[in-house]
Amino acid sequence: MATSRDVARAAGVSQTTVSRVLHDHPGVKPETRERVLRVLREMNYSPDGLARAMITRRTGTVGVVVEDITNPFYPEVVEAFCRELAAVERRMTLWNSGEAGEPAAVGAIRQRLVDGVIFTTATSDSAVLKEAVRQGAPVVLFNRYVQDIDCDRVTTDNLGGGRIVARYFAGHGHERIGLISGNQKASTAIEREKGFLEELGAHGFDPGAVLRQPGDFSYHRSRRAMRELIECDAPPTAVFCANDLTALGAIDAAREAGVRIPEDVWVVGFDDIGMASWKTFDLTTVRQPISDMVRAAVELMVRRVSSPGRSFEHVEFGSQLIIRGSTAHKQLPE
Amino acid sequence: MATSRDVARAAGVSQTTVSRVLHDHPGVKPETRERVLRVLREMNYSPDGLARAMITRRTGTVGVVVEDITNPFYPEVVEAFCRELAAVERRMTLWNSGEAGEPAAVGAIRQRLVDGVIFTTATSDSAVLKEAVRQGAPVVLFNRYVQDIDCDRVTTDNLGGGRIVARYFAGHGHERIGLISGNQKASTAIEREKGFLEELGAHGFDPGAVLRQPGDFSYHRSRRAMRELIECDAPPTAVFCANDLTALGAIDAAREAGVRIPEDVWVVGFDDIGMASWKTFDLTTVRQPISDMVRAAVELMVRRVSSPGRSFEHVEFGSQLIIRGSTAHKQLPE
Repeated sequence: MATSRDVARAAGVSQTTVSRVLHDHPGVKPETRERVLRVLREMNYSPDGLARAMITRRTGTVGVVVEDITNPFYPEVVEAFCRELAAVERRMTLWNSGEAGEPAAVGAIRQRLVDGVIFTTATSDSAVLKEAVRQGAPVVLFNRYVQDIDCDRVTTDNLGGGRIVARYFAGHGHERIGLISGNQKASTAIEREKGFLEELGAHGFDPGAVLRQPGDFSYHRSRRAMRELIECDAPPTAVFCANDLTALGAIDAAREAGVRIPEDVWVVGFDDIGMASWKTFDLTTVRQPISDMVRAAVELMVRRVSSPGRSFEHVEFGSQLIIRGSTAHKQLPE
Repeated sequence: MATSRDVARAAGVSQTTVSRVLHDHPGVKPETRERVLRVLREMNYSPDGLARAMITRRTGTVGVVVEDITNPFYPEVVEAFCRELAAVERRMTLWNSGEAGEPAAVGAIRQRLVDGVIFTTATSDSAVLKEAVRQGAPVVLFNRYVQDIDCDRVTTDNLGGGRIVARYFAGHGHERIGLISGNQKASTAIEREKGFLEELGAHGFDPGAVLRQPGDFSYHRSRRAMRELIECDAPPTAVFCANDLTALGAIDAAREAGVRIPEDVWVVGFDDIGMASWKTFDLTTVRQPISDMVRAAVELMVRRVSSPGRSFEHVEFGSQLIIRGSTAHKQLPE
């Protein structure tokens, strides 16, 4: 493997000159520059990334922490992060373990193995995360946030999303309404439910009369939850699910029980994963603009790493109801 | 952030002693060791990972290259890699771009930013990969391999898997048989099809009479492919799909056309992703033992990094037909 010394020798210049060419320094004669570039190509030179990281104090690697990468929302998020990080010439280290991933990720910042970490899994239990932010580690919260951790973050208007669904159900005359909730430690679940219940209240419903089943954003739990709702004496005619994967489990449970969607019950999710538009699911849902959110998160991370002292920025994207067959293609009421 | 010098000063010892304690060196008095450990904890010391990587020439990071992480097979693979790499105290850098990811990953090995890379995307076009292996870079091929790249690899018996499906169709009297093929540059697609067609030939079928539609392992392409098969004058009564995602697209196309599965047509996939067992799909498929394959790949990578000169190892796992409702729960013929 060629070193910069080998390149310098072969090109008949000093290592300083080689370094200047590599960094596009203006003080190099054009013919010298050409000669050095030609030697670099011929010798297949790769700058020693480790050494450069030591010197510049930047690894060019950003960590991303997800929880349950098999929830189809997260592969779409990870795909977007790979693309957006590559666009700014960064690499991605991925941790897939929610709470266990947080200490590992924070440890990696301390050990200077990543420049910063983007967390998609923050919950109110995140003691390690709180400490890391307190110590000034470059952190961006994506999708979920925590009240008492102040740092850069990118979220969707989850409260607004919940409200839209409530208005939609109320506006189409549904009287028996169900809800399969999400992970109660996640701001996303809490806010979607809050917006939903508050808006129902504003439309004259008793939020306490909503048929609520606990879910945890997973397929298996939500199948059980939907089974419970279906077996009620007076089952709901419309069910709001905390995320799309929950809605997919609910749809499966309905099918097993011979309950027809949308004729017997409307089902609405949240995320708008690719599968929501599959014929098999045809799922009405609240769309999160994943690409925009990820691009914003990467921008925040890049700025935070280069300007550690800048003020924290909170970016919030609006959500949008996407209407499909699981609610009979009925539009939002005016 | 505490440095080893800060720790040494606070503990009243030399930096050498601190280093010895960190590396469990035997030549340190028990009481000194205790004192240094206490100071390390109190000062929340993190060894400088970058510096250690420079010295040991190991980053403790392994790269993984996938293509299309939104194909549900890959999140399950990535989840398994996260777990198995964490179990051997390695981190994972993820590239999600197939051909574009290969040069970036190989470049990262050259720049000493990862210790080696596991490729799940190798195709016969992989010039960069060939060159990297030729130069002795630590590489493991996972699931797909390339004939003229000799290196460590872990695969499933794709030929055998294709044969089992052919035997299954033939043994239940299907006469009009369809196939939606996979990415023709991937060894997995080529071998599954080869085993399938050869075994049909051995059972008296004319492989040329198989109704073959080209697919590319994706949902959208396979929907179109199945639509073509359904609109044939004499449509197939059983269709083998190159992977599960292809089968999910085929199922959706059948539903849109009002074709019943399994009554009108059997559908079989390959992988056994989690969704294959959902009620909505209930998909008969050939199972790949993902956890076992990933564990084997990580073992091969760890051994290759520590013993660069050892002989290449090819690990192949057997495949297994998992029978569900998409083929009417009929068992394999005796």
